[in-house]
This record gives sequence, C-alpha cells and structure tokens, in this order.
Amino acid sequence: MKDVQNRRDRRKIPIDKVGIKDLQYPISVLDRANKSQDTTARINMYVNLPHHFKGTHMSRFVEVLNDHHGRISVEEIEDVLLEMQRRFKCESVHIEMTFPYFVEKAAPASGAKGLVDYECAFYASLGPVKGSKKPGLNLVIEAKVPVTMLCPCSKEISERGAHNQRSIITIKARTVELVWLEELIEIAEKAASSPVYALLKRPDEKAVTEGAYDRPRFAEDAVREVAKKLKNDSRVAWFQVESENQESIHNHNAYAMVVSG
Amino acid sequence: MKDVQNRRDRRKIPIDKVGIKDLQYPISVLDRANKSQDTTARINMYVNLPHHFKGTHMSRFVEVLNDHHGRISVEEIEDVLLEMQRRFKCESVHIEMTFPYFVEKAAPASGAKGLVDYECAFYASLGPVKGSKKPGLNLVIEAKVPVTMLCPCSKEISERGAHNQRSIITIKARTVELVWLEELIEIAEKAASSPVYALLKRPDEKAVTEGAYDRPRFAEDAVREVAKKLKNDSRVAWFQVESENQESIHNHNAYAMVVSG
Amino acid sequence: MKDVQNRRDRRKIPIDKVGIKDLQYPISVLDRANKSQDTTARINMYVNLPHHFKGTHMSRFVEVLNDHHGRISVEEIEDVLLEMQRRFKCESVHIEMTFPYFVEKAAPASGAKGLVDYECAFYASLGPVKGSKKPGLNLVIEAKVPVTMLCPCSKEISERGAHNQRSIITIKARTVELVWLEELIEIAEKAASSPVYALLKRPDEKAVTEGAYDRPRFAEDAVREVAKKLKNDSRVAWFQVESENQESIHNHNAYAMVVSG
Amino acid sequence: MKDVQNRRDRRKIPIDKVGIKDLQYPISVLDRANKSQDTTARINMYVNLPHHFKGTHMSRFVEVLNDHHGRISVEEIEDVLLEMQRRFKCESVHIEMTFPYFVEKAAPASGAKGLVDYECAFYASLGPVKGSKKPGLNLVIEAKVPVTMLCPCSKEISERGAHNQRSIITIKARTVELVWLEELIEIAEKAASSPVYALLKRPDEKAVTEGAYDRPRFAEDAVREVAKKLKNDSRVAWFQVESENQESIHNHNAYAMVVSG
Repeated sequence: MKDVQNRRDRRKIPIDKVGIKDLQYPISVLDRANKSQDTTARINMYVNLPHHFKGTHMSRFVEVLNDHHGRISVEEIEDVLLEMQRRFKCESVHIEMTFPYFVEKAAPASGAKGLVDYECAFYASLGPVKGSKKPGLNLVIEAKVPVTMLCPCSKEISERGAHNQRSIITIKARTVELVWLEELIEIAEKAASSPVYALLKRPDEKAVTEGAYDRPRFAEDAVREVAKKLKNDSRVAWFQVESENQESIHNHNAYAMVVSG
Repeated sequence: MKDVQNRRDRRKIPIDKVGIKDLQYPISVLDRANKSQDTTARINMYVNLPHHFKGTHMSRFVEVLNDHHGRISVEEIEDVLLEMQRRFKCESVHIEMTFPYFVEKAAPASGAKGLVDYECAFYASLGPVKGSKKPGLNLVIEAKVPVTMLCPCSKEISERGAHNQRSIITIKARTVELVWLEELIEIAEKAASSPVYALLKRPDEKAVTEGAYDRPRFAEDAVREVAKKLKNDSRVAWFQVESENQESIHNHNAYAMVVSG
Repeated sequence: MKDVQNRRDRRKIPIDKVGIKDLQYPISVLDRANKSQDTTARINMYVNLPHHFKGTHMSRFVEVLNDHHGRISVEEIEDVLLEMQRRFKCESVHIEMTFPYFVEKAAPASGAKGLVDYECAFYASLGPVKGSKKPGLNLVIEAKVPVTMLCPCSKEISERGAHNQRSIITIKARTVELVWLEELIEIAEKAASSPVYALLKRPDEKAVTEGAYDRPRFAEDAVREVAKKLKNDSRVAWFQVESENQESIHNHNAYAMVVSG
Repeated sequence: MKDVQNRRDRRKIPIDKVGIKDLQYPISVLDRANKSQDTTARINMYVNLPHHFKGTHMSRFVEVLNDHHGRISVEEIEDVLLEMQRRFKCESVHIEMTFPYFVEKAAPASGAKGLVDYECAFYASLGPVKGSKKPGLNLVIEAKVPVTMLCPCSKEISERGAHNQRSIITIKARTVELVWLEELIEIAEKAASSPVYALLKRPDEKAVTEGAYDRPRFAEDAVREVAKKLKNDSRVAWFQVESENQESIHNHNAYAMVVSG
C-alpha cells in the first residue's frame, strides 16, 4: 500500500508542529496524598516535520499513548517523549495534557471534607539544545485555581459589605525539579481572599465570609503574591501567573498577569 | 440532476425536526430605546418531514433567511415561518435565534452610561392546532440576565461581609402579546440583589456594594420574585425562570428553577 | 447559629428544582467489558422545595455524593436518589451526570485497538406517581456517538467522491430495564455510514473510506434507523434521537431529530 | 472618596498586563466590499502597571471604548491605543477583539449568494521600542477560515471515495501595511481542498464534491501553502498558520502549524 506521507515535498517549508489534537483519554496522575489518581485528559501530541517529507503518520501518536496505558505523570512524561522521538525519528516532540485534578480539602471550621476540582495541565517537549548533544526537556505545569476574591476598593469605600466573586488564578511554571500541583494550588489559594471549598456547613460559611472580608485582594494583589513566591523558588525556571475575577458587579472580568524575567 | 431527497422512504418513520443548526448570521432586532439594533445570531431552522420523503432540502433554509435580509424581529418572525411553511410544504416549522442584545444603562450614582450585554433568544414555531384550521404561532422569548446575588445566610451568620457573586437569571416566556426583552431584563434585575453594570465609577461601586448588601437574595428568592411577576402578566401564557449563582465560595453553582402551571 | 433557609416563605410559590449545578467529581461507572471504569463527571443535583420554606441546604447534596464515594452507576443511582429524598424530606429528587465514557474498539482491518470516547449521561429522578404510593424512578441514559456520515445526494450527483463529515448521533432512552451504554453506541454506529476509531492503520483507513462510501446516509436516515431499533426494544419506554452533521461543505450543521410517541 | 488603587505598593513587582477581559460590545469593522459591517465583539483591554501602584482603574477601559462608539477598525485602533496610553499614563497598552466577520460568497455553479461567517480578531498593542522615542504599534490580524479538507492518503489507497471534513485554517499575521481580512480568507481557501459555502444548490454541491476530490490536501499541505504565500508578502512581518481537521474518521483532530522566522 502506498505511503503518501513519506513522499518528497518540494516546497522547502519545514513544519513546526504536526500531530493530533483534542484526543480524550483516561489517565492516571501522581498525587501527593494518595500516590495516584484516575482522571480524564484532553491530549495534544505534536512532532516537527522536516521540509522534505509530505506528511506525518498520525496513528503512531495513539500507539505511543496506548503503549503507556495512560500512565502519564510528570515521572513518565519524558519516557513518552523519548518514545515519540524514537518512533517519529524527529528532533522536537511535544505533548500537552489538560485534566481535572481533585484534591480533598477540609472545611475551615467543621473540618468536613470535600473534593475540589482544579483544571490542570502538563506541557512537555523535548528538543535540540544549542551547544549540547543531549536534547533538553522543557516541562511546564499548570494549575487553574478557583478562589474567592474580595475587592479592597469596594470594602474601603462602602459602609457595609464588599463585592466579591469567584476568580481563577492560573499558574504556569517551567520546573527543573519536581513541583507538586498541590504546591501551585496552595500558593494560589494563599494569594487570594479565600480558598473555595466543595462542602461548607454553616460555621464554615461564616469563617469563609469573614476570612475573605478580612483579606481583601485585587487581581493585581493575587498575581503579585504568587510572583513573589515563585521568584524565590529555585525549582521554577520560568512562570506566568494570571488572575481573572468573574466580577459580581459587571458582566465582564477583571484580569491581571505577571510573567517572569 | 437526480433529487435523492425527494425519493420515497419506506421505513414509515416521520421526522419531527430536520434542518440546519448553528448558522451564524447578522440580524437586526427591534429595540425599545432605539427602534432597532444590529447584532449577530446563531440560528437553527427546522421543519417536520413526513414519513414518505427520504430527506429535506437544506439550502432552502438559507434562502428564506436571505430573502428576509436578517430582519428577524418578533414582528417579522411569523412571516419567516409562513415562508418556510410555503417553501417546504410542511405542517410544522421552527426557528430558534440566540444573540447578544445590548441595553444602555446609567450607573446608579454618577449616571455614567454603558452598554450591558444580555444573551437573548427567540424560539418560534408554527404548527397545526387541534380543532382549528389556522396553524398556531408559538413564540417563546428568552433573556439571560447577569445580576449580583448576595447570600442571605452568609450575611446573617457572619459578623462582617457576605459572599456574593455573578448570577445568571434566565427567563423564558411564551408570549401572546408583545413583551419587550427589556421588560424581562428589568424583572430579573429587580428580583436580584443588584443589577450589574458595564461602567461604574467609585460612587457607583459604593452604591452597588451597599445596595446588594441591603438586599440579600437566595437563588430561590430570585426565581420566586420573577415567577410572582410573570404569573400576573396576561401577555405571558407560560414561563420558566432559572437562577444560577456562580458561587464565590464554591467551584460549583447554586441553582433554582420554577416553571409555570 | 440561625437557619435562614428554614424560615417561612410567604410568597406561596413552590420551587420545582433547587440544588447544585456543574460540580465536577470523579466517578466509577459500570462497564460491560471491564466491570467498571473510572472517569470524571459534571453533576447536577436538585430537589423540589415546598412553598413555605425559604431555601434549601446546599451542602447536603455534596454530603450525599461523598457518602457514595462516587460509585454512581445505573445500579447505585436509585440509592443516591433515595438518600437525597431521606435527607431533604422532599417529594422529588433529581440527579444528572455527564461524563466521558471510553470503549475499546478494534480497527476494521488490522484489528489494532484504541479507546474511543463517548460523551454519556444519566438523568435520574424519583418522584410521586399518580395512583401509587411508591415513588417512581425515571431514568434516562444518553450517549453522544461520533460517527462518519457520507452524503447520499453528494455521492449520487457527483462523478467522483462524496462529501462526508464527523457527525454526532445523540440517543436519549428512558429505560425500564438495564440497557448498556455500549448498546446505544452500537445502535448509533450501525445507523451511520461508518463508526469512527481512535487508531487506524492504512489498511483500516482504506476499509473505513470504502465502507462509508458504500453506505451513504443522510442525518434523516441515521435518526430513522435508530428509531426503528428502539421502537422494538421493550426495555425502552421513551427515546429521542438526534443526528448533527458537522458538514464538511458548510460552516453550519445539518440536523435531524425523532422523538418517540 | 479614597482611591485605593492609587496607593503605593511595596512588593516591587510590576504587572505586565492588567485590565478587563471578555467584555461583549457591538463594533463596526471596515469591510472591503461594503465599506463597513456591524458585528459583535469580545474585547480584552490591558495596560502595564508600574511596581509602585497598587491597582489600575478598570472603569477607564470602558470609557475609552464608549468614546469611540465601537468604531474600532484597523484604522481607528491606533487612536484607541493612544487614548488608553494618555488616560492611563502608562507605557504599554493592549487591545484584543474577537468577532464574527461575514463575507458574501457566490456558489461555484449557480452563483447563488450566501453569507459565510469567519471568526476574526485584532490583537494590537503600543509600547516602547528600543532605540526609539516613538512607541511602536504591533498589530496582528487573525482569521479562522472553515474549509473542506480531503485526505490524500485516503484517496490514494481507497478504490472509491476519500474521507474529508470541515477544517479550520487559522492565520495570524503581524502586518506593517493594510492587509484585508478578506485576503487572509482567500489565501486560506486556496490552500484547502475547497472553500465552504452557506448556500449550495445541487449543481454547486456536485462542483464542490468533485473539486475537493480533485484537490486532496493534508493539514500539512494547507499550512505550507499559506506559509509560501505569506513569506513573499512584504506587508507581513510575522505570521503563524494552523490547520485543524475535524477528522471524519476519528473523534480527535489532525493539526499542523508553521510559524515564520
């Protein structure tokens, strides 16, 4: 059977990334509290394609995933990338995985437990490094952390109350040593007016309400607090932090972003 | 050229709705303040298909839209439906349009003006009515109204502050006389702790913060307030009202719904 | 601590549904091939609220989920509903769960295996039944099945080729006896021009291409084929089937729907 | 009234972008055929915030928009940015607008006309330029172009038919002179197996089916064809082109991307 993809292409245009996008797949992720958790991911996998090949072989991406049976934690991710490199005989390989990640949290007063979901992601690639024979691993981990944000201006200028809202703090960190998703989540929650919870009894609701009122934070404050922490973390080579408040008084969002270096 | 759609189908299964879905189209909608406003819609159009026809002719839906040049307000919608009925020679025809609708609102203290967007929809159909020779028009109008909701429980049990959040109140109303989208919007905003605005200066933010604190409302309260109003409106033959709070203290929403009769 | 929700409401408006929406939660679902599979769900839970209560207690919904540790297959779902009824002391209770469901499929020529994801849902409620003391269970299962659809008209009128596209066939079935999600999936795939696969080697791609070309189907055909099957299945008390073609020649979709009875 | 935002911040962390996100607003865009078209946009506006200020004044973003009455074509966009710079007294300002853009197209055989919608965007910023006193304008225009893609491999290895699907070609171009959105759209459509249309009569469907069959293209081909064109266009200083096939034989997409220089 003819191999159309393997034909020679004469346009002299190499392709930066070619592959599959938005494949849904069950995965198992390393978890600080329970060793591992089962969840479901949306996966993108790409390779570079030299200018002289007409196309790539898309089925091989799924074969690589199948060979790893969905065990694609930070530990295994380099193996997956190396296997892609071997199978595609190419220089640069990329895998991106987005998945809900669940962490059990105790409510602040009652201690009642509930699972909070965080949208997390791994962006990993392996490619040539200038002046080195060994290809370099580039790993960015991401956590989207829902929090409560209470507006300092609204509190200060109002005689009673203060507008507050759900906000999403998104941290991306290029790591050179293991950083747990749980660590990013904690950094984000501490930078906010309050964490959110899945299960709050009335004494908890009182504690969260008063706690948030006592810690007013702008979107600007949240990203600065996170940035301050990550700048001093030697495991983090680069980061970006965003905070997006789903404003309770507007139908649009308030946004702030800091990127390192 | 053969007309495959017109062939006889022998499975004896009539089709309730067949047509086009998710067509994006610029439309012009009647507007209480400015006569008309230009916006963009996602449109679905369906007809019924008797059991003996194999298929419908999808291009005719777009032709009907083109003939009306996107003027598809409540006034023109019956004409569009009659034209569909004529062109498809069928009993039941349906059109659904979802679009952002903009209303200028003045901020509560400064009077500063800004456009607030509301996701609105028309669901219209024309079909046989039992005991009548004239087909009946069924028109449901919908407005999704972003508002501020401040939790009565949080306020009552906390020594300071109260959690609040953006909430979407969705009203669907089957109308037998003209009801403006602006009327549904006002009913929803009055049922909430506060309306939201596009543009708030500091004195406005103070007014909105204090106003919401003084009018705590559960999702349950909002739907009851709206239901009370619509029950007594003779122009409304049926309604459904939902309130969905994007809880600032949880990563899930609080929801309430009342449907008439 | 005051219980604001328990206060008397005087508006005389009962609430049809009140609860939590869009809670993300890891679940375990019964699976025909492997006994059970771990996946992640978006969950809604509602109860009715009599007119004289001001509000419901939202934290109890999450407590019920926690008590069942996410084991919420068709088998366990009635237990969850009964527990909700007991805990809320109400008449009607509802749970809705939407989740990706993975089925291993062998490619048609090579037999290569891959996991295909199907967006599935359970909609379950328990409520009063006229003329009966026992509350009735109402269970609707849903599968959204991606398939290939090849246009019969395009094939017939063209000298070569035929436009085809990914289509989603959505089956909702109210079941009175166990029906596997896998059964709905198979019914949908047989009604289409071809199933889709996660992993196709070249001989498989040839088989799928030629197979789809040999089985042209309109959206109308797909819903009729599914309807024919479900009408004769005594385990199915009601159904709705939709087919939505993501047309390769348009930027809008073609749609057909049949609802039983 | 106190100005909390203006207070001194001592964390020494400047903020790269702060502003409003996802504001929906009616806009009027310059149009090659009709001078201008009315549509609706989702708008983000950001400024940089020096390290010593605590927060930005979010209401000013909406004021700038209001002052321009939504006339925000490529022509006016620099004025909007200059006004932001003046009002915020800052170095870098950004505006991003995403909107459906409608182009009338004639069907290939019948000449029947219909509006096709393209998701388009402007990303504009104004900021300091090294070695220059004048701030530099950075303008990227984007068009997402739905097309038909027919698989060369499937055609070659199959005795009849070939799988094809809707694909989205996304072109981003940093322009130094006016480039019409219509030009990007034409470049994308010529790189594909076929354009898509809103309205096709049967002779048109035959023409599109056969035309696509005669022009098989991988996602890889599409991005190379576009890249070839843009490399030679002196008005384009930088570009990125992506093609994402919504594969009719898979439930995931095929993807290719080329970025310039």
